[in-house]
Amino acid sequence: MVKLSAKDYFSSDFKLGILGGGQLGKMLLYETRKFDIRTKVMDASDEAPCKIACNEFVKGSLMDFDAVYDFGKDVDVLTIEIENVNLDALEKLEDEGTKVYPPAKALRTIQNKATQKLFYTDNGIPTAGFSRFAYASEIKDSVENGGLEFPFVWKAAQFGYDGQGVKVVRKMDDLAELPSGECITETMIPFKNELAVIVVRNPSGDVVTYPVVEMEFHPEANQVEYVICPARIDEDIALKARKIALKVSEKIGHIGILAVEMFQTQDDEILVNEVAPRPHNSGHYSIEASYTNQFEQHIRAILNLPLGKTESKVAGIMVNLVGTEGHTGNVVYENIAEIMTMDGVTPHIYGKKQTRPFRKMGHVTIVNKDVDEARRVAQKVKETIKVISK
Amino acid sequence: MVKLSAKDYFSSDFKLGILGGGQLGKMLLYETRKFDIRTKVMDASDEAPCKIACNEFVKGSLMDFDAVYDFGKDVDVLTIEIENVNLDALEKLEDEGTKVYPPAKALRTIQNKATQKLFYTDNGIPTAGFSRFAYASEIKDSVENGGLEFPFVWKAAQFGYDGQGVKVVRKMDDLAELPSGECITETMIPFKNELAVIVVRNPSGDVVTYPVVEMEFHPEANQVEYVICPARIDEDIALKARKIALKVSEKIGHIGILAVEMFQTQDDEILVNEVAPRPHNSGHYSIEASYTNQFEQHIRAILNLPLGKTESKVAGIMVNLVGTEGHTGNVVYENIAEIMTMDGVTPHIYGKKQTRPFRKMGHVTIVNKDVDEARRVAQKVKETIKVISK
Repeated sequence: MVKLSAKDYFSSDFKLGILGGGQLGKMLLYETRKFDIRTKVMDASDEAPCKIACNEFVKGSLMDFDAVYDFGKDVDVLTIEIENVNLDALEKLEDEGTKVYPPAKALRTIQNKATQKLFYTDNGIPTAGFSRFAYASEIKDSVENGGLEFPFVWKAAQFGYDGQGVKVVRKMDDLAELPSGECITETMIPFKNELAVIVVRNPSGDVVTYPVVEMEFHPEANQVEYVICPARIDEDIALKARKIALKVSEKIGHIGILAVEMFQTQDDEILVNEVAPRPHNSGHYSIEASYTNQFEQHIRAILNLPLGKTESKVAGIMVNLVGTEGHTGNVVYENIAEIMTMDGVTPHIYGKKQTRPFRKMGHVTIVNKDVDEARRVAQKVKETIKVISK
Repeated sequence: MVKLSAKDYFSSDFKLGILGGGQLGKMLLYETRKFDIRTKVMDASDEAPCKIACNEFVKGSLMDFDAVYDFGKDVDVLTIEIENVNLDALEKLEDEGTKVYPPAKALRTIQNKATQKLFYTDNGIPTAGFSRFAYASEIKDSVENGGLEFPFVWKAAQFGYDGQGVKVVRKMDDLAELPSGECITETMIPFKNELAVIVVRNPSGDVVTYPVVEMEFHPEANQVEYVICPARIDEDIALKARKIALKVSEKIGHIGILAVEMFQTQDDEILVNEVAPRPHNSGHYSIEASYTNQFEQHIRAILNLPLGKTESKVAGIMVNLVGTEGHTGNVVYENIAEIMTMDGVTPHIYGKKQTRPFRKMGHVTIVNKDVDEARRVAQKVKETIKVISK
């Protein structure tokens, strides 16, 4: 392969491959369009949001060896927008000289949650205690022989997404509802805050971190309501969180974005919860609030371009738009015009035609020079807009 | 046609038509994608940048009655990204109930520069003195009989674009080089500053203005080097400029964006130079600097949604990327990686594969909390990046 220098990416025949054509890919494509980077996208669905806005689209299964391998052979750099892809194909592509970012090895560490947890303990990265089970049925034995105590968190080892594959188990009866496959259980952490830090690394070894963001939970529903940047935490906690995120990044050897989700415990310890090696929900605020948004930053990183400034122009808060309970069918965004009258509000509509309870349909960003004012507007946004069916 | 309310635009069968598929259209499509607004684009070229990222693309001449009419019949709202379109077709579409924004009447006032100048004088809007000529050959007679004195500015009445169709005429010999068609001549204004104000109006009558921007010229080349927001002018001049821009907007009856270019004379009078009824080069800084960028704002306006906040998060400066003299052929962006190391710098590459001297190939935005620091970085950008051929 010809060695590319930065100037060759722009308006050239260079081709970036993206595995997955969903919402994250769609936002990534705003940036490839801005830089005029040619793109080829593969997704299992013909309805994938990326089908338009990429230069070439291929329908194919991301878990299929041949589909991924053939796709990868036709591009210069290969990246992902979802981590559930065929890793054997990525490894073969790497062996044959394709630039795969994040590398298959990093994905192998992350894709399976048991492997990911072992990675933390092997590398001295603080994380909640856990047990590993080949089958969910083994959990019962462990509880009965005193090896595991209620309550604990169950996680499917593979293919969890958007809160799927995670459950709090409080009693024997809850065990019956769990899927049967490989899984882990984790000690429940009574955390003070859930935090996240985005780390970005390019092949030259340049590394930057974004400010710490905070997930604010609904007091009763125990659901993330707001992602807030900057997190309203002490400076020393923020420094500790960024330092731990950098350590994870260094040990895992990713290229591109790594979103590191963490707990701040009651004792102000930082425990790593899990990571995602791609643009992440916790970084969506950056489109409106940051000097360099996470999608542009991912492109800069995987093309080995200089990384951009990660500071914020203004405070940013993200609210997920999820389907309202009791509504299934053709989606309507009730009161969307009303939220657009509010100060610094930008809706992002993902374009799914059908809503169902809790389905992620979009997000809204609220920016303001003052984070507390942004928080007030965010609450008004949440109380006003409703994702319902007609 | 069914009356649409705001919520019906998003993730629905509503279809927005865009006449013209160039760079402005491309940036408009980032926003339709963000809101999941379905789009259909027509352009004469199969290579139009909008061909990807729109939902449907039609190849057709924008000046052809049938092409524009047929295109317009298939959409719910019709807008433009270039003003040279067939106005008879737009009028017929309006008569038949299609929402055409900006309206054909406003476009008719603007499309012909002589009509545009008459509009200013008819409405008491200050503008440079001018004469109107059916043929350029008549200019000579006017000079010879003392009706016109050198130097003056010649402008083609129609189809000027990006500085094409404008010339300074200093002596008899210069006249021979002018195209023969309908034109105007204008008194040369020895201006202190060239300013611009973007006004946005929706069908409900909501109107907002963006801050005044300043075009800074190269001291020798007499070419715009930087578009700077906010303009470094006195507050009372800025207020006067915004007030005059609002008057133009009100009288012209546009919907969507109207970019009003103005001169600040040596005596601090404001004279309107010309207007564009669409997103404009003078508003590109808004993508990175404003709470609501001009493209999102245009979409909000033509869909009769609430208009967004026009203030800036940070100061913004735009530098046009034009082809270097002496270079024609396959484009290379020399030192693009170097400018990406600079503070707050975002390149926008338009994706034209061939460069030629002075061809507009992209732009670079520089943002900073401090406008003077942004200006220093902008100069470094301009001195560093070169658009050349390989």
